[in-house]
Amino acid sequence: MKVFSRLVFVSLWAVVVLAAQDRPPNIVIIFGDDIGYGDIGVFGHPTIRTPHLDRMAHEGQKWTNFYAAASVCTPSRAGLLTGRLPVRSGMMHDRVRVLFPESWSGLQQSEVTIAEMLKQKDYAAMHVGKWHLGHLPDYLPTKQGFDAYYGIPYSNDMDATQPGDKRRHALLHPDRIDYWNVPLMRDEETIERPANQYTVTKRYTEEAVKFIEKNKDRPFFLYLAHTMMHVPLFRSQEFTDRSMAGIYGDAMEEVDWSVGQVLDALRRNGLAENTFAVFTSDNGPWLIFDTHGGSAGLLREGKGSTWEGGMRVPAIVWRPGTIPAGTTQTGMGSTLDLMATVAAMTGTKMPDDRKMDGYDLGGAMKMTSPSPRNEMFYWRGTRLFAARLGDYKAHFFTQTGYRDRGETRQNPPLLYHLGRDPGEEHDISRENRGVVARIRKLAQEHELDIDEVENQLAKIGDRN
Amino acid sequence: MKVFSRLVFVSLWAVVVLAAQDRPPNIVIIFGDDIGYGDIGVFGHPTIRTPHLDRMAHEGQKWTNFYAAASVCTPSRAGLLTGRLPVRSGMMHDRVRVLFPESWSGLQQSEVTIAEMLKQKDYAAMHVGKWHLGHLPDYLPTKQGFDAYYGIPYSNDMDATQPGDKRRHALLHPDRIDYWNVPLMRDEETIERPANQYTVTKRYTEEAVKFIEKNKDRPFFLYLAHTMMHVPLFRSQEFTDRSMAGIYGDAMEEVDWSVGQVLDALRRNGLAENTFAVFTSDNGPWLIFDTHGGSAGLLREGKGSTWEGGMRVPAIVWRPGTIPAGTTQTGMGSTLDLMATVAAMTGTKMPDDRKMDGYDLGGAMKMTSPSPRNEMFYWRGTRLFAARLGDYKAHFFTQTGYRDRGETRQNPPLLYHLGRDPGEEHDISRENRGVVARIRKLAQEHELDIDEVENQLAKIGDRN
Repeated sequence: MKVFSRLVFVSLWAVVVLAAQDRPPNIVIIFGDDIGYGDIGVFGHPTIRTPHLDRMAHEGQKWTNFYAAASVCTPSRAGLLTGRLPVRSGMMHDRVRVLFPESWSGLQQSEVTIAEMLKQKDYAAMHVGKWHLGHLPDYLPTKQGFDAYYGIPYSNDMDATQPGDKRRHALLHPDRIDYWNVPLMRDEETIERPANQYTVTKRYTEEAVKFIEKNKDRPFFLYLAHTMMHVPLFRSQEFTDRSMAGIYGDAMEEVDWSVGQVLDALRRNGLAENTFAVFTSDNGPWLIFDTHGGSAGLLREGKGSTWEGGMRVPAIVWRPGTIPAGTTQTGMGSTLDLMATVAAMTGTKMPDDRKMDGYDLGGAMKMTSPSPRNEMFYWRGTRLFAARLGDYKAHFFTQTGYRDRGETRQNPPLLYHLGRDPGEEHDISRENRGVVARIRKLAQEHELDIDEVENQLAKIGDRN
Repeated sequence: MKVFSRLVFVSLWAVVVLAAQDRPPNIVIIFGDDIGYGDIGVFGHPTIRTPHLDRMAHEGQKWTNFYAAASVCTPSRAGLLTGRLPVRSGMMHDRVRVLFPESWSGLQQSEVTIAEMLKQKDYAAMHVGKWHLGHLPDYLPTKQGFDAYYGIPYSNDMDATQPGDKRRHALLHPDRIDYWNVPLMRDEETIERPANQYTVTKRYTEEAVKFIEKNKDRPFFLYLAHTMMHVPLFRSQEFTDRSMAGIYGDAMEEVDWSVGQVLDALRRNGLAENTFAVFTSDNGPWLIFDTHGGSAGLLREGKGSTWEGGMRVPAIVWRPGTIPAGTTQTGMGSTLDLMATVAAMTGTKMPDDRKMDGYDLGGAMKMTSPSPRNEMFYWRGTRLFAARLGDYKAHFFTQTGYRDRGETRQNPPLLYHLGRDPGEEHDISRENRGVVARIRKLAQEHELDIDEVENQLAKIGDRN
């Protein structure tokens, strides 16, 4: 009898273990807003303390040549979730660079998101945080494969309640939460307006942890996109005046705390080894806001620009037991690659009826093969400003971040070697005309590969 | 009999263990040359791969507000070894900023070095590498407490064999090793001239490891000061064209390998837990050499300047079991503090007949107390250019690194908050006149505390 019951127990245990092994990994994408390349301890910031992100890197892997899909918010997010350059989905425009409360379009339902792809394996999927791919009913997360949504659907500096001349002051003095009349939504309903942004990082975190706890016995996809570090900066009482680095440091340290809470929830529930977690940012730091904007470290320029500081972002990937701990990957990667990487590791299939722009980075994360990505295209609106091939980057046009002094056509293109000169300081186009010609050809072929599509960001204001 | 022999064995073992516990820790100081704040992976460099330094940080502690004693070589080294500002030992001059082959003085024998202090406990002491505190017989390491010396006694860009107009080319094209007729010394003898700089990092490392192996049963002090990353850059064949970051990356990756070799020798001999190891640099990156110079990351300026990039250096401390692994200390520290820190942890006494400038950082390293250092003085030659108090830094004079465009007197002083604005971009002196006044007072008191001494760097060329 005893032997029999032990047998039953062992068999049951084997079934549970096999089922668990069979279960595809959970996917957690934590996306920061306007967090610069240099804003994190392990990426070199000297006074912002990020022990949880540092630990994530010590247990996981830092990517130092990792790019957002665009240098501003809306197109960057469209690229991450679809694995396609936002210029393919109509989510980039030369002047209307992001969606606004007055926009009446968004990411089209014909686009397939990572959440929709994972439905092939019945993943539970939740989006917590900033969406910014359309706030009207047809464009919400719940229409793009997410079972649930909780968050502020666009940027936290929108819906200003007072005229523009008070705006900059309000952006830099977060004493009046109600200056920004942004909604907080649950699923398809607004539940709070203006959203209390003081506690938004904390509440996003609570929602994320609750989702993990609730779904610990089935595969899940958590897409946690913080409203921070977009100005106006807010942080909860526990983090107020806690950092050496002012309000920016306070808010960043709360985002870091949030990362710790999410990873702890995974560890606590025995899910660490079967979860692939990524931390990255939607674009570079918003430098026009002085100490309320972050830092790109040694990279040039910031948000809005196609210099490296605008699009190269901090990135940490984590899957204990699979991704070797404490390693650094200097190969190229992009948020555009997350869909292909997730597809490969979950055994799901990306759409095959359209052009995709991602690579499976799984081998590079395991350090068993080099990164398959060898090129990067830097779009600004609907025009290709720069392209990288291997270590070389050519700029065909340059323009500084958000200070709209207009573009400069570079002919011949500027050329930088990003290995030796990551700060893009020494133009070497004269000595390397062959390299310039090769990148120019690559860029031309790439542009020919982009089909014309209906622009969704142009759909703003008066419909007539 | 069996019991008896076991008893003897256990007793002997107890004696060995007790003796080992009683033994003060070994001290290993690894000092890079011109390595910038941003040149190391864990300090944010995106393309130079430093897995050994990264591991040292993961197992140890990163200091992100750590300063060299000066912004150029000779005075920085004098400060580290004596725990005194170099202006106190006559090792700073306004125009002759370092020692040269034509210099006929050096660090005075009346100065007490860390090596001499450790003789109180009979430490074996060796200096491997760049000395730069006097190359004539009276000033060599063997006259300053070191039992043995192996290295190039001054900078590797000295003793040029050809006229100045070929110099810059030779500095940036390390194809002719004999352009630089620098000596390689063992103890007090020149054993090779010109030194074969291709293999200098490798041979320094071999000497260091040999010294560790030889002294594994007694306390030792190893001061390993690399000739690299001072231009002209050289690296051994194994590291040639190996990095993504050109020759700078190659040479830096060889220095990183060297750190790995030294720490491995400590681990292999069971000495890790009883060894305090530090890695840091003598000053910021030499920016005038383009991609042959390093990077200060987000810090402003480089070597030779009193902006942060000139004097704040990467620093990693390591003592497994004592210093908590993977932590970051954002409190202030300086190479000036190493002597006091070492004195406290070894139970030796610093000289008490002179003014000292260091603090014991042991508690801050253990994270049991904040750093006792709350101020930093930025001397350029014999004048105080800037001072830091807490997070605030005031500049009384500014001057760019080595490009000698002359100094600018800042009146009122420029003021920066280094917590919120580590890149020294936003002068806030107007809004903080009280802080400026406080730092000015601190600076005046400090200047009054500096006694006039004979200048040793002025002793150059003709003795008459």
